[in-house]
Amino acid sequence: MPQLRIALAQVNTTVGDLEGNAELTVEWTRKAAEAGAHIVVFPEMSLTGYPVEDLSLRPTFASASKQMVEALAKRLEDAGCGEVLTYIGYLDLDETGPRDAAAALYRGEVVARQFKHHLPNYGVFDEHRWFKPGQELEIVRFHGVDVGMVICEDVWQDGGPISALGKAGVDLVVAPNASPYERAKDDIRLPLIARRAAEAGAPLVYTNQIGGQDDLVFDGDSIVVGADGRLLARAPQFVEHLLVVDTDLVAGGHTAEGEFEGLRVKRRVLSEDAVPAYTPSTESAISEPLSDEAEVWHALVVGLRDYVHKNGFSSVTFGFSGGIDSAVVAALAADALGGDNVYGVSMPSEYSSEHSKGDAEDLARRIGAHYRVEPIADMVKVYVEQLQLTGLAEENIQARVRGMLLMALSNQDGHLVLATGNKTELAVGYSTIYGDAVGAFAPIKDLFKTHVWHLAKWRNKEAEKNGETPPIPENSITKPPSAELRPGQLDSDSLPDYLMLDDILDDYIEGDRGYVDLVDAGFEPETIDRVVRMVDKAEYKRRQYPPGTKITFKAFGRDRRLPMTNGWREGTVVTRSAQRDLLPG
Amino acid sequence: MPQLRIALAQVNTTVGDLEGNAELTVEWTRKAAEAGAHIVVFPEMSLTGYPVEDLSLRPTFASASKQMVEALAKRLEDAGCGEVLTYIGYLDLDETGPRDAAAALYRGEVVARQFKHHLPNYGVFDEHRWFKPGQELEIVRFHGVDVGMVICEDVWQDGGPISALGKAGVDLVVAPNASPYERAKDDIRLPLIARRAAEAGAPLVYTNQIGGQDDLVFDGDSIVVGADGRLLARAPQFVEHLLVVDTDLVAGGHTAEGEFEGLRVKRRVLSEDAVPAYTPSTESAISEPLSDEAEVWHALVVGLRDYVHKNGFSSVTFGFSGGIDSAVVAALAADALGGDNVYGVSMPSEYSSEHSKGDAEDLARRIGAHYRVEPIADMVKVYVEQLQLTGLAEENIQARVRGMLLMALSNQDGHLVLATGNKTELAVGYSTIYGDAVGAFAPIKDLFKTHVWHLAKWRNKEAEKNGETPPIPENSITKPPSAELRPGQLDSDSLPDYLMLDDILDDYIEGDRGYVDLVDAGFEPETIDRVVRMVDKAEYKRRQYPPGTKITFKAFGRDRRLPMTNGWREGTVVTRSAQRDLLPG
Repeated sequence: MPQLRIALAQVNTTVGDLEGNAELTVEWTRKAAEAGAHIVVFPEMSLTGYPVEDLSLRPTFASASKQMVEALAKRLEDAGCGEVLTYIGYLDLDETGPRDAAAALYRGEVVARQFKHHLPNYGVFDEHRWFKPGQELEIVRFHGVDVGMVICEDVWQDGGPISALGKAGVDLVVAPNASPYERAKDDIRLPLIARRAAEAGAPLVYTNQIGGQDDLVFDGDSIVVGADGRLLARAPQFVEHLLVVDTDLVAGGHTAEGEFEGLRVKRRVLSEDAVPAYTPSTESAISEPLSDEAEVWHALVVGLRDYVHKNGFSSVTFGFSGGIDSAVVAALAADALGGDNVYGVSMPSEYSSEHSKGDAEDLARRIGAHYRVEPIADMVKVYVEQLQLTGLAEENIQARVRGMLLMALSNQDGHLVLATGNKTELAVGYSTIYGDAVGAFAPIKDLFKTHVWHLAKWRNKEAEKNGETPPIPENSITKPPSAELRPGQLDSDSLPDYLMLDDILDDYIEGDRGYVDLVDAGFEPETIDRVVRMVDKAEYKRRQYPPGTKITFKAFGRDRRLPMTNGWREGTVVTRSAQRDLLPG
Repeated sequence: MPQLRIALAQVNTTVGDLEGNAELTVEWTRKAAEAGAHIVVFPEMSLTGYPVEDLSLRPTFASASKQMVEALAKRLEDAGCGEVLTYIGYLDLDETGPRDAAAALYRGEVVARQFKHHLPNYGVFDEHRWFKPGQELEIVRFHGVDVGMVICEDVWQDGGPISALGKAGVDLVVAPNASPYERAKDDIRLPLIARRAAEAGAPLVYTNQIGGQDDLVFDGDSIVVGADGRLLARAPQFVEHLLVVDTDLVAGGHTAEGEFEGLRVKRRVLSEDAVPAYTPSTESAISEPLSDEAEVWHALVVGLRDYVHKNGFSSVTFGFSGGIDSAVVAALAADALGGDNVYGVSMPSEYSSEHSKGDAEDLARRIGAHYRVEPIADMVKVYVEQLQLTGLAEENIQARVRGMLLMALSNQDGHLVLATGNKTELAVGYSTIYGDAVGAFAPIKDLFKTHVWHLAKWRNKEAEKNGETPPIPENSITKPPSAELRPGQLDSDSLPDYLMLDDILDDYIEGDRGYVDLVDAGFEPETIDRVVRMVDKAEYKRRQYPPGTKITFKAFGRDRRLPMTNGWREGTVVTRSAQRDLLPG
């Protein structure tokens, strides 16, 4: 039984940064070599980052990516890592079109390259737009072991590459992945990988990337399973990690080439001799997945940190209102960047309560943030008097003055502006476009209001467990939420109770259920009608006046992309005149 | 040779408005019946509108669409149109998934239904996300003539349905389309349709929709060609139109069923008897395509009008600066909505020149727009003094105060806000996010600055030809452009000459050419470097802080969708530190 020590490089790449990602590859391959690994497997498109979106369509980028693969093979050899069989991902381009590709590098050369076969085109994926599917599988014999590869979705779909490798015969399968985090995805990942290993009849090495990329976040959770589906190694979530595992493999001596399952199988021999026997490590390489709350919190922290850092910023600014949303965003930002990189701004109006200002100051003190107070009364007054604003126009101008104030501070001091809106608010349109929606990144846009409260309590409890100051003022958690845009205003004046509202929204948005299904689920028809109308109206408004952040709810739920001009209403009556209740702002 | 009178209903539908579109279908089928037509062909997905985007994924919507098809068949019969074979498009859903479908309605029943086979997934199309491909072709024999159908992309791609129909045998092919306008697309449409008719061995009836839908616009240009490729009829562009044409057809008596080109062909006989002989119309039904300039102007007018009206608005407001961009937007808005529905706002600052205010007032007078003056000095002063703003922060706050002022007026008076930025400005980032980028719709975002000038002169000349007042003040065309955000500022302080700039942008953005290609094209390396850096930086900024309109340049050029967090630079050096020059605002 030939032995092989395999390393999984669970790294955090940056899309488009070929040079930086190449450096990262050399650095982590060196670590793998130092750990005595014979093979190292990087994530999908590790050289370009993932997803490259329409960068895949730029010939100059594809050409730079291809050249970098050749150069990287040489650089790895020069760095003394030439003997490690290194699997990386990159963007290829041939006469058929752009390809999501993986390559094996060895002794300064590209010894195998393969294109992804199954191209996902749902949810957050648009791969039929970005790539053409591959039809070939390249198996290399390395120290007597036949190693096949599949790329990401090739593992997630029935049939195709895995099945073809199983029929042609392999001793080991490596699978570079870029599989975005979704709530509880770790629960389905392991059984799936185990099933695929059984189909391939060989151990499977699944390397996933970590880190934030735009509004996606990747959790890692890289896994190695045996041919029998047994878990051999599992990396921790949300951190860069070199997972090293010793395997006892079968040298199957497979030779079949040609067509399997419609795919062409090719083979190449690198070396027949097994590695000299060595004593495998007895240490467990199996990390426990995080709890549900910790997982979400880490996803939000990592997504925020990488958005800020990968865009070349180090600090953030946003409004500290004293409410729960800005408090949770502040706690996340402090965890992500350090309190010293958080610049809170209290922007009280004549309607702001005393407790709001006190809670905002308390928050800043708890997380060690910078804090300043900039009253908006003088700015608002000029607009209101000059334009004679009343009602909604007067409410909105307050939120907009705050948005512009933050952008001015951002221009002046170089901080990135964060938007503090939650998913419930955004879904029902309880938010002002160009007002509180202003910001480059909205850390809690994927959390319903009830989740915000839940996580706030969880985070405070964690702090208490560790003997630290709970970051979120108790008062921000317990007081009734208010936008404070008119005297005595409460969210409950305009919205149903949040528990019920989030329940309906979860069914309507996440569950894609319709009016009739919601009635069947026991909600009151009047409430459904009210909520559905709010959501549809908000959807249009957001698309008409796209707010200061992507609002597609990508990271943790379904991505709804809907036309802006759109007469469809989920409610009972669909008429042209139903559009008339649409007003901007 | 059996005769048939065929009507093409080139209509303007609204996405999602099933009831409105059904009404439209009844109304236009009645017109076709009154014109003596035996067959009427509507555009692709005429019942749901096109594109429905992710509405295709909502089961409740698909189910409503399917029910509406059945109901529509009945309604047509009740309206006395049961004898007209009516081809409509709709959204279907079966166990495989959502379908881009067409149906033939006759005597109160659905007598044929077929799903689109070729699903485009490039440029503005994401159909692999929205639909599953169809594998069946349904041919009906109607008055002895075998009528096949294909849907949109099925005509545009080689092989597949057209080829299968040609081999199985048909006497006539109808092709419901939703083919978005692109500059000069009419020049390629006719030769393509002629070639497909030859492949099918039968006359081809191509019905395209007209009208604006979000940032797409459809030009109509519906066409009928003979089996020999000869043009028989062509509808005018950008207007709803019933195109009626008499055809002499061959009754081929085809009977072949089963598999052709991997598609299953089915047949159904509705009626064998030819229609009684009648005297065909001798009137020419061939409209001339518009000139290049007229075509673009109409596209902009129709796109703007439909965006405003289909979203339930009747009036628009935006800044009248005295410059060329707002003047052209005003002329477009007046052509689209009438001058009386245009509310111009002059928002002078201390840096605004006298001629700017004069030209703005002159513009309002020429197009009959409402006009008001709202100085921004008092608002700007509060921000600048309270926050001690200088430099870029001070320039940006002026643009942002204007944006918020327009939104306040929109809230107060119910007008839709337009953004007046052109493609050159947006491409190089010479624009303030949340400032002049504020607005629901940006009518000239797809015109380079040089195009704006060209169209302005063309529009004025057209007015002179018709003895009308030229809408655009001569001074706005001739004076050197300036943002007027600091004393004596000119665009040429910050940007290369517009002629050269637009030339480079056209190569870089539209042509997808890289740095080396641009050098080869003879541009100076320093200028290329400068422009490319501006474009890339602007691309990031727009994605970090999405402005008040979709900026994907969809309608008239390539749609670039790029990741926000992205280390790729087209220039010579690609390093991590290259991201550091990125600042918000």
